[in-house]
Amino acid sequence: MTVTLHVCITCRAGQELREGETTPGARLHAAILGLSVPKGVEVVPVECLSACSQGCSVALSAPGRWSYVYGRLSDANAGDVITGAAAYAAAPDGIVPWRRRPEIFRKQSLARIPPITPLIAAPEAAE
Amino acid sequence: MTVTLHVCITCRAGQELREGETTPGARLHAAILGLSVPKGVEVVPVECLSACSQGCSVALSAPGRWSYVYGRLSDANAGDVITGAAAYAAAPDGIVPWRRRPEIFRKQSLARIPPITPLIAAPEAAE
Repeated sequence: MTVTLHVCITCRAGQELREGETTPGARLHAAILGLSVPKGVEVVPVECLSACSQGCSVALSAPGRWSYVYGRLSDANAGDVITGAAAYAAAPDGIVPWRRRPEIFRKQSLARIPPITPLIAAPEAAE
Repeated sequence: MTVTLHVCITCRAGQELREGETTPGARLHAAILGLSVPKGVEVVPVECLSACSQGCSVALSAPGRWSYVYGRLSDANAGDVITGAAAYAAAPDGIVPWRRRPEIFRKQSLARIPPITPLIAAPEAAE
C-alpha cells in the first residue's frame, strides 16, 4: 500500500528566522527528498500540522490505517523518518512492532488517530 | 456528515492513580457522554492516542476531512469539547473558522493531519 508522509514545511521549530531564511521544516522536507524515498511512500509537503510547539513534525497516514504524528525533529532525522515510513508502508496493517520503529518514532510521538472508517448505513429492513 | 470524536480513556494525565481509580481519560469520556452529544457526532472511546505527556486528549476525524488532536484536557472541558465537535460536524468541509472554535481548540492543539485520500491509479492510456 502507498502511504503518505506529510512533512510540515512552515515549521520554525521555535526559532527566530532571518527574512528569507529557509524554515527548519522546509530543511527537513528537502533532506527527506534528498535521500532515497522508498517505493510505497509518497512525501507530501504541508503548511502547518498544528504542532508548532513540538516541531518539526511529520505525519504518516493511509486509508484504513492508524495515523501517526511525530515531533521534535530536524533535518538530521531525515534518514530515520524514511526508515520509519518504509516500515509503516510495509506493515500489512500499518502497525509496526515497537522494537522495529526508529527511536524517534518510539520517543517522539505527538499523537496517533484511529483509522477513519466511513459509517456504513444499516441495510434497509426487509418488509 | 457524522464525525468521530475519539476520547482516550486510558490517559492518566501524568497522575499517579490508586488501584482501581478511574483514569482522568475515562472521567472525560464519561463527562462527555453525560452531556447531550449532538447529532452528527459519534463518541468513540480509544485506548491511547499516544499523546500521553499532553493528556487528556481527544481526536476529531471524518472521511475526507482534516483530523485534529487536542490535549491538556480534563472532564471540566467536556462541554467545550462537545461544542467544538459539533462545530466540526456542522462545517461543510470540517474547517471551523478560528473565532468559532472553543478556546481549548485554539490553544491546545496537539496536531492536525490532512485528509486521507486514496491514491487513484492513473487510467490506462488509450491504445
